[in-house]
Amino acid sequence: MSELPGVVVTGVSGRMGQMLVREVLASDKLKLVGAVERTGNDWVGRDLGTCMGGTELGLTVSDDALETFAKAQAVLDFTAPAATVQFAELAAQARAVHVIGTTGLEESDLEKIRAAARHAVIVRAGNMSLGVNLLTKLTKQVAAALDEDWDIEIVEMHHNRKVDAPSGTALMLGEAAAEGRGVTLSEASDRGRDGITGARERGTIGFAALRGGDVVGEHEVIFAAAGERITLKHIASDRALFARGALKAAVWGQDKAPGEYDMLDVLGLGD
Amino acid sequence: MSELPGVVVTGVSGRMGQMLVREVLASDKLKLVGAVERTGNDWVGRDLGTCMGGTELGLTVSDDALETFAKAQAVLDFTAPAATVQFAELAAQARAVHVIGTTGLEESDLEKIRAAARHAVIVRAGNMSLGVNLLTKLTKQVAAALDEDWDIEIVEMHHNRKVDAPSGTALMLGEAAAEGRGVTLSEASDRGRDGITGARERGTIGFAALRGGDVVGEHEVIFAAAGERITLKHIASDRALFARGALKAAVWGQDKAPGEYDMLDVLGLGD
Amino acid sequence: MSELPGVVVTGVSGRMGQMLVREVLASDKLKLVGAVERTGNDWVGRDLGTCMGGTELGLTVSDDALETFAKAQAVLDFTAPAATVQFAELAAQARAVHVIGTTGLEESDLEKIRAAARHAVIVRAGNMSLGVNLLTKLTKQVAAALDEDWDIEIVEMHHNRKVDAPSGTALMLGEAAAEGRGVTLSEASDRGRDGITGARERGTIGFAALRGGDVVGEHEVIFAAAGERITLKHIASDRALFARGALKAAVWGQDKAPGEYDMLDVLGLGD
Amino acid sequence: MSELPGVVVTGVSGRMGQMLVREVLASDKLKLVGAVERTGNDWVGRDLGTCMGGTELGLTVSDDALETFAKAQAVLDFTAPAATVQFAELAAQARAVHVIGTTGLEESDLEKIRAAARHAVIVRAGNMSLGVNLLTKLTKQVAAALDEDWDIEIVEMHHNRKVDAPSGTALMLGEAAAEGRGVTLSEASDRGRDGITGARERGTIGFAALRGGDVVGEHEVIFAAAGERITLKHIASDRALFARGALKAAVWGQDKAPGEYDMLDVLGLGD
Repeated sequence: MSELPGVVVTGVSGRMGQMLVREVLASDKLKLVGAVERTGNDWVGRDLGTCMGGTELGLTVSDDALETFAKAQAVLDFTAPAATVQFAELAAQARAVHVIGTTGLEESDLEKIRAAARHAVIVRAGNMSLGVNLLTKLTKQVAAALDEDWDIEIVEMHHNRKVDAPSGTALMLGEAAAEGRGVTLSEASDRGRDGITGARERGTIGFAALRGGDVVGEHEVIFAAAGERITLKHIASDRALFARGALKAAVWGQDKAPGEYDMLDVLGLGD
Repeated sequence: MSELPGVVVTGVSGRMGQMLVREVLASDKLKLVGAVERTGNDWVGRDLGTCMGGTELGLTVSDDALETFAKAQAVLDFTAPAATVQFAELAAQARAVHVIGTTGLEESDLEKIRAAARHAVIVRAGNMSLGVNLLTKLTKQVAAALDEDWDIEIVEMHHNRKVDAPSGTALMLGEAAAEGRGVTLSEASDRGRDGITGARERGTIGFAALRGGDVVGEHEVIFAAAGERITLKHIASDRALFARGALKAAVWGQDKAPGEYDMLDVLGLGD
Repeated sequence: MSELPGVVVTGVSGRMGQMLVREVLASDKLKLVGAVERTGNDWVGRDLGTCMGGTELGLTVSDDALETFAKAQAVLDFTAPAATVQFAELAAQARAVHVIGTTGLEESDLEKIRAAARHAVIVRAGNMSLGVNLLTKLTKQVAAALDEDWDIEIVEMHHNRKVDAPSGTALMLGEAAAEGRGVTLSEASDRGRDGITGARERGTIGFAALRGGDVVGEHEVIFAAAGERITLKHIASDRALFARGALKAAVWGQDKAPGEYDMLDVLGLGD
Repeated sequence: MSELPGVVVTGVSGRMGQMLVREVLASDKLKLVGAVERTGNDWVGRDLGTCMGGTELGLTVSDDALETFAKAQAVLDFTAPAATVQFAELAAQARAVHVIGTTGLEESDLEKIRAAARHAVIVRAGNMSLGVNLLTKLTKQVAAALDEDWDIEIVEMHHNRKVDAPSGTALMLGEAAAEGRGVTLSEASDRGRDGITGARERGTIGFAALRGGDVVGEHEVIFAAAGERITLKHIASDRALFARGALKAAVWGQDKAPGEYDMLDVLGLGD
């Protein structure tokens, strides 16, 4: 008799939604019990398996999140801020762990999420990969150990369809470096270096963004001093990483007290 | 009885000048016959070896280029545009090979250099390392072989005292890529990427500049397509490279017809 | 009215076979007209689409290669030596372009393939990616341009299930380097460096193999001299690359004279 | 009135000895008070500055370590095991901080060094660079945070005159990884991978050694899992690094209690 925690995936028709579905179907620690899309989406009311171009799964895509969440122990949500804020409240009512990979949340959104986290477990992270979260922690630590004789540069490369630079993850690494060094990123950061720049200003944190091909995501933090360099690098080669991180968070959250957590907590890397 | 070509180094008191002197002294293909500095420099009139903090060389630093060049078969010159233009004329009179590593030459300077090259051999290059010149050639060739499905990105890293970005060598690589692809670099280049940039524009050539520590010079040309990437990279770890390239040019030029040459000619890489 | 060349994929139930099918289905330059598996495979006699876990394609998997090839202009074949040798003869009878990605062919197999190539176009390559083939060409060229002051090292990284080291592609790069330098790889190669090795022997070509995770394939050729290094690197991040190279070969071969070709020919990189 | 700690350099005629001398002369935290060479070396009895090809320093090279150490607060020693063991005792008698960069020490040597450390401060490390020591600490930590789904590979590159592989520093990193993971390096290490190796054995730590040009020393620890990789890398570009680390240790040790320390202690990275 299966006792695996039941999972609902939101935004199932999207690229990330479908990836989450596939990972849950392949998991032996979670089972899929629901799929949600917004009203009007043409997947609503149809079988999820068929919609994904495969065989029937016996699971109908629903636009009723309240009802769908009721039978779940976890909700995996990589949608948009407005939807995520609503889902946070509904998931809290259902006492389901709400795993949030949605980006672009503003302070007002975060407040509502914090309110929901008083009643249920919420795990929220801009990047769900184990590697990137570990890299963030290391970056802070190395920045704290080294003085300003070590210039910090952060380089990232992503596919050619990415519209912003540097990446959110690069900025997260920059925040970690700034925190380790005891400075404010907005004051220390040196972005878009080009032309007659003058010598590098001591203590700054430089950023460079490369774009090309279909690169999933690569981030490198360089600490350069006289005669030596330390480089911490992460390469993501498969978007499924981010989905797998979300599943890990859903499992981890099952026995935790209500509250808002991040991937460092899930991964046991928090300090 | 030694028949090695005699070499004069100009600007001997500078960092590059001293490096050239050391390389010539260590060479078994050239011998040092003169050292030139500008009038007023406090090395003038003193023994070169003593000035450099070592033992006497029996060679007095002179501010009379005309007289000094008269006994030379080659002049190694990494000074400044105004001096270099004069030296070109004097070296041509002496029928000495003039190796020019001076940067920042303008069109009017180049014209005078071309005039001098009607009477003597001139080898001029922005970067005298074998590796960088080979990389330039490869970049042009690969850019010609691949279509615009391959995004081109050029990344360089230099020490934290460098005042301009991207480096002159990065721009030279960009020119080579543009030429290979049949476009104009000024139209194709995408520099200082930062903020909401939109998706990468097809056919552009991106540049990024990293600064840190005492890195001598690293250049990387990335060709990124769906599912694969080719990277051509050069690492210079010793500034003596550039001096050694100049010596190679001086030896090579000894039996050549008057004219202006570059390092691809010296290295036998021209096409 | 569609006049796209018709393609048959052999070994369709395998990982590479399925990838080839997906790429042909997505192509606007080729259409799928047949799918072959060996007698006894349980896909035989069933609809290909259904077998692949998707919707019906109206195409039945056959174990009769002769009949299936008859209606094709190209055969994509990443199977095993014994099958490939047979397919070469059958494809030649059908005057179909035979694209061979099969590895492990022995001299006796190659002879039979050459015989078949008297009557039809055969394109055969150990690695069908554009990038790797270009890298091979560059490696030969750079090895020819540089003397033995430049130490050559070849490093590759692949997933942790790979059973041989170095990879076939690394050896192909080594062959290219040896050829460029005018030496024999078997005499020059230095593999499995470990322990008290003594100083590096001048002129050798070193190999190192890294294994880890699910890395698709990365190859790097390093030329290292005093003060500088040139690195040529290829990163494959998607196995579909190899399938796409095969499709390109199938299209390219349509109007060629009978003969045996490789990817350098297809890519216009031959010399 | 100068109160800088006085330093003696041993083995001054060697490459590392001369580098130590130059760094002490350039330091504003230490002053050079003595230079030691073995009896019979032709520098003994002559002025150190003259021996090094420069101007006189007013300091005579001595073969009497006892007398020379008597006036010193620190001894910098990158010589050989037999000499180092003697120096440890003499430095302890003089209550001078003994900084040991000597490699190849055996258990019997280490015992004698430990005995000496009961009376004076000894700092001993196989690699004195800040970066490598920090990398070692990070490697242990990351290996402890990640499970065996992450394959560990250690790659190093050194100049072509290096006679052993992998480097001592690579092995030190391997020890750190093994310790982090709770295994024994000698059982887990996979060296000299070549030929038909079979799939990578789970839990092993792979090593690869590259040799070429005049590369000072590069070390990379790769953690590779499905879909992602973390890489920790150190690049040393200047041998003076190791000398500077030794000076740092000499200054640090001035006010410490007797005992044996390593660079993690000096750098405040110990745990």
